[in-house]
Amino acid sequence: MSPEPAVLADPAAPFAATRPRTAVATVCLSGTLEDKLAAASTAGFDGVEIFAPDLIASPLSPADIGARCADLGLSVDLYQPLRDIDSTDDARFAANLRRAGATFDVMAGLGADTVLLCSSVSPDAVTDDDRLAGQLHRLAEHAAARGMRIAYEALAWGRHVGTWDHSADVVARADHPALGLCLDSFHILSRGSDPSGIADVPGEKLFFLQLADAPQLTMDVLSWSRHHRLFPGQGEFDLPAFLEPVLAAGYRGPLSLEVFNDVFRQADPVRTAVDARRSLLALAEATARRDTGHHAGTDPVAVAAPELGGHAFVELRGPERPVAEAEAAAAAGAAADPGPDGPDLGTVLRALGFARTGVHRSKPVTRYEQGAARILVNSGAEDDPGADTSHGSGGSTTTAIAALALESADPQSSARRAQRLCAPLLPRRHGPGEADLAEVAAPDGTSLFFCRTDAPDGAGWAGDFVPTGERPGPGTGVTAIDHVGLTQPYDVFDEATLFYRSVLGLAPCADGEFAAPFGLVRSRALADDARRVRLALTVSLLRRGEWAPGVSDPQYIALATDDVVATARAARAAGAPLLEIPANYHDDLDARLEPPPERLAAFRELGVLCEADAQGSYLQVCTELLDGRLFLALVQRVGGHDGFGWSDAPVRMAAHRRRRLARSTGG
Amino acid sequence: MSPEPAVLADPAAPFAATRPRTAVATVCLSGTLEDKLAAASTAGFDGVEIFAPDLIASPLSPADIGARCADLGLSVDLYQPLRDIDSTDDARFAANLRRAGATFDVMAGLGADTVLLCSSVSPDAVTDDDRLAGQLHRLAEHAAARGMRIAYEALAWGRHVGTWDHSADVVARADHPALGLCLDSFHILSRGSDPSGIADVPGEKLFFLQLADAPQLTMDVLSWSRHHRLFPGQGEFDLPAFLEPVLAAGYRGPLSLEVFNDVFRQADPVRTAVDARRSLLALAEATARRDTGHHAGTDPVAVAAPELGGHAFVELRGPERPVAEAEAAAAAGAAADPGPDGPDLGTVLRALGFARTGVHRSKPVTRYEQGAARILVNSGAEDDPGADTSHGSGGSTTTAIAALALESADPQSSARRAQRLCAPLLPRRHGPGEADLAEVAAPDGTSLFFCRTDAPDGAGWAGDFVPTGERPGPGTGVTAIDHVGLTQPYDVFDEATLFYRSVLGLAPCADGEFAAPFGLVRSRALADDARRVRLALTVSLLRRGEWAPGVSDPQYIALATDDVVATARAARAAGAPLLEIPANYHDDLDARLEPPPERLAAFRELGVLCEADAQGSYLQVCTELLDGRLFLALVQRVGGHDGFGWSDAPVRMAAHRRRRLARSTGG
Repeated sequence: MSPEPAVLADPAAPFAATRPRTAVATVCLSGTLEDKLAAASTAGFDGVEIFAPDLIASPLSPADIGARCADLGLSVDLYQPLRDIDSTDDARFAANLRRAGATFDVMAGLGADTVLLCSSVSPDAVTDDDRLAGQLHRLAEHAAARGMRIAYEALAWGRHVGTWDHSADVVARADHPALGLCLDSFHILSRGSDPSGIADVPGEKLFFLQLADAPQLTMDVLSWSRHHRLFPGQGEFDLPAFLEPVLAAGYRGPLSLEVFNDVFRQADPVRTAVDARRSLLALAEATARRDTGHHAGTDPVAVAAPELGGHAFVELRGPERPVAEAEAAAAAGAAADPGPDGPDLGTVLRALGFARTGVHRSKPVTRYEQGAARILVNSGAEDDPGADTSHGSGGSTTTAIAALALESADPQSSARRAQRLCAPLLPRRHGPGEADLAEVAAPDGTSLFFCRTDAPDGAGWAGDFVPTGERPGPGTGVTAIDHVGLTQPYDVFDEATLFYRSVLGLAPCADGEFAAPFGLVRSRALADDARRVRLALTVSLLRRGEWAPGVSDPQYIALATDDVVATARAARAAGAPLLEIPANYHDDLDARLEPPPERLAAFRELGVLCEADAQGSYLQVCTELLDGRLFLALVQRVGGHDGFGWSDAPVRMAAHRRRRLARSTGG
Repeated sequence: MSPEPAVLADPAAPFAATRPRTAVATVCLSGTLEDKLAAASTAGFDGVEIFAPDLIASPLSPADIGARCADLGLSVDLYQPLRDIDSTDDARFAANLRRAGATFDVMAGLGADTVLLCSSVSPDAVTDDDRLAGQLHRLAEHAAARGMRIAYEALAWGRHVGTWDHSADVVARADHPALGLCLDSFHILSRGSDPSGIADVPGEKLFFLQLADAPQLTMDVLSWSRHHRLFPGQGEFDLPAFLEPVLAAGYRGPLSLEVFNDVFRQADPVRTAVDARRSLLALAEATARRDTGHHAGTDPVAVAAPELGGHAFVELRGPERPVAEAEAAAAAGAAADPGPDGPDLGTVLRALGFARTGVHRSKPVTRYEQGAARILVNSGAEDDPGADTSHGSGGSTTTAIAALALESADPQSSARRAQRLCAPLLPRRHGPGEADLAEVAAPDGTSLFFCRTDAPDGAGWAGDFVPTGERPGPGTGVTAIDHVGLTQPYDVFDEATLFYRSVLGLAPCADGEFAAPFGLVRSRALADDARRVRLALTVSLLRRGEWAPGVSDPQYIALATDDVVATARAARAAGAPLLEIPANYHDDLDARLEPPPERLAAFRELGVLCEADAQGSYLQVCTELLDGRLFLALVQRVGGHDGFGWSDAPVRMAAHRRRRLARSTGG
């Protein structure tokens, strides 16, 4: 799943003129120090912060590590951390200075000139600010004698110094050129401190800047910091607003990431490093835009993406019977009969009211249409070199979503932007005269295309298909693709958030968690402001183990309709394999919402799931699983309901499992 | 890994005369409702609480579910929950009563007569206690008309009613025989409320009791409750002390578990149910002992276990060369040379100073001894029916810990107790005249034996070995087994805590978390008060994914010595494959602790790791990995240090991986 290093060659080149230096702390990445340095270099970082425990476990001497960094094109921008230097006990303080001297020795080997000093958490921390400043002055003298400098950081849980302004005050009192500040966005924003005053700090006192995002959690700040930090754009902190006063004050050092995150600590470090670098590129871009006043929206990372016009098509990979065979089956009333590989996709789409409107000029791909909803079925084997190279996550041959194509106002610009933001560009393969669509891989492996369906040029992909002569009729009432649901691999959920925010310009619009039959599921939806493009992401809250029977959370395409009852009824009459929902569900719905009896009867008959809030309701009818990991849903949003039916997901998942068990036992 | 149902046949029989009824909420278990009910029955529960969302997702009607429960020998002790019944809006209250009526319909089908009513969290919650009591009285009238009753529970985060005494006051004001209390240990203890006043509540008002333990966490109580509850004995709440006033008040209903836990929600439900039932058996036992005044200790779950005298032996499964070959290799100075399957265990043990003192009469097992440390090496294939049936976790043929044998004052009583507490009893296999040691499986699959090495009867296992004539000499100074380190499978960490507490009578003595190179590791040690038996358990904080190179956290045996430098030096001279530790580690040690130079030099030379605190220090020298998942450590506790060297584990783990990589590339 790792992006190919080749596609990362100078991903930030378009930003080169103005881009800030980027750095990453080794503590962000999994592996040994050697693994981490290699990953940071592969992702294109300019420098690193070296975390002392990583160095201590390494067999390389500090000088060898410094040489390794130089070979990899990385500067050592910071060594970290020094802890608990000041002391009310003079003998202890003397021992602490000795310890700092050993740190300076290490730094000399590394070729690092700045060390992070955390505010003390020790019971002997000095609480008199003048005495504290005096001790830090002494330390700075030692550093200066070695040509080094101390960047003092207020830990949010520091015993005496816990805020950035307190640390700035102590540094001002200490008044030594080798003593300055390290600002860490987490420590500042987690306490709800106002960063605007940072603009007034003398620029030469801002020695270092550490950036981290985080979700808003209600827990002790130490645990929050040590387990739940995220890269900028993955959480809920407003980092462009944080960065503004820092830059205004005159900070000119690197933008450096210090993110303690349980998942990143055990994920592929190259992949994490690319994700990390993407976060800084997007942040720099958003901040630059903010600076020049071009930005007034609420989602600064997103604004540079060309406007999206909707889902151009979704491409499925899966079995499709020859037309004659499918028509014979349909005539025999066996449309819904699944073969051994699951229901034929073409048959299911026809039963759902789609017309088969085109056949690709050179690939085994068929186009289905209804209203503005377009679905391509690619029946080529994934490893067939003649077949389309789109690849769904997992790489198996089961039915799955292979690609999303999005309408862009400027497809080429969208693709270039994606590439700038480290999206792995996939090799293009198109026949003579066929559309040249730029294709990038999303974190879960799904391909993303940008296109303009109505364009006369190469972005107009429709011309790649030979019309069958069949034209879209009224169908069952499906009007468009409402959204696409994508199950994320465990390690890439936060990466996916940042990817879709930065590359597509979507914004998170709903977060949730639900208790599925086999474990908790976390969900997040992203959408553009106009709600033309919606994506619903889900992931297991904990990675699943052996006990995970059935499909926990398949992918799906949600098809919009203005009357889900009529659409589902027509689809069922045409043989669509709709999912049965237990009577207990509708009994409970009746108890909770008391719908009109005839409406409730229709819901029961057709298996309509109904999630309601004060605004309206989200009605959905799902198909059975098509070959294990995909289903289609007919959805109606009543009263502008902006949700995704997650409260009904456990019922749907239990029904999918039941149906699958029944099928496997011949039921 | 699931215990065989056969061994669970009436596990609680010895408690039958006095034992309370036990129940489990379906929300504790993974799977569909049908999976959960089957698991509860298999584990021997008397009843269940049925969680409404489980029923709603089931295709079985309430009556069919009731019949299923009856077939499985389960009573439906509670249906739950009813939420947000009271309302400041009269029309809303009327609608809520209608909703409650639908719940009574479901209960009638189930054959359940008690429903849990949670205190309201709704913005329209009634805040006038008399009005609230009046509305609950109305609800109780409806319930009574159906022959049902309402158990009112104060949620810790209830909008108006959040404490047990407030809920008791409201119930008293409402004054209806069909309205009583549900007490939930989590809601009460998480708020730090004093439960002693419960003893004064009229017993007939205590309708239901829900039990849950939890770790002490500093976070919002709702998230704490929904993700981190544990079964009694797995967390930090004093549940025997909680239960005492409840029983004193006259509660005679079931002890029922309601545990929301992220791991249990996705683990094998049979396994979780057995763990759950063990927790209630241990709690009932501890509470009974507390009642009769026999108990004065601080660890009520543990006191009934016979006293443990130490580690009788540890049995390893792994390769052992024929003696002549090993001796020839040793004479050639090649003792430490690993073969393709890793170093020969016998050679390593000899180099560490062990004597080969006996050969088993009927199995391919050899006994090694030094001081009071005894290690058996079982070189039989695991699936060889003639071999010992001990089985380490994982079931592979790599070197691993197969069994722990503990000295018990009363081995038969220890074994019976283990069986009573649902420990799977393994089939006994012993030859004529050989010791008949009861063997049970710990949660990670390691076998546990209880024995009395000096006993003349069957518990005296030493007689099973034919002496080789070799006698333990001074060796290298190893005196005993200090402790054993066992990596736990991800899903069983909390289960293991309860298992060792209840079955062995150990108590948690240290909890930790450290950043290993490939992810965070959680650690917990358990020991008896006299520190004769110590176990160190570790588990990945998150289940590992594909990126987990090297062995993240192998098993080990820690061998005690009074002089780790002398012991390690002697072992190294004899060819023991000791692990090299990087110079950076000792440079840092020098900076932090400033040991005497000659001491530091010895530490560097021998790779001594040193964890120090105010009390003393824990010194250890580790061997390389022996065939992948096991190492041995020489440990010295200076000044009674009671730790386990976890702060040094990341350095050790990086060194193990490095050595392994070097070996795989011929280094």
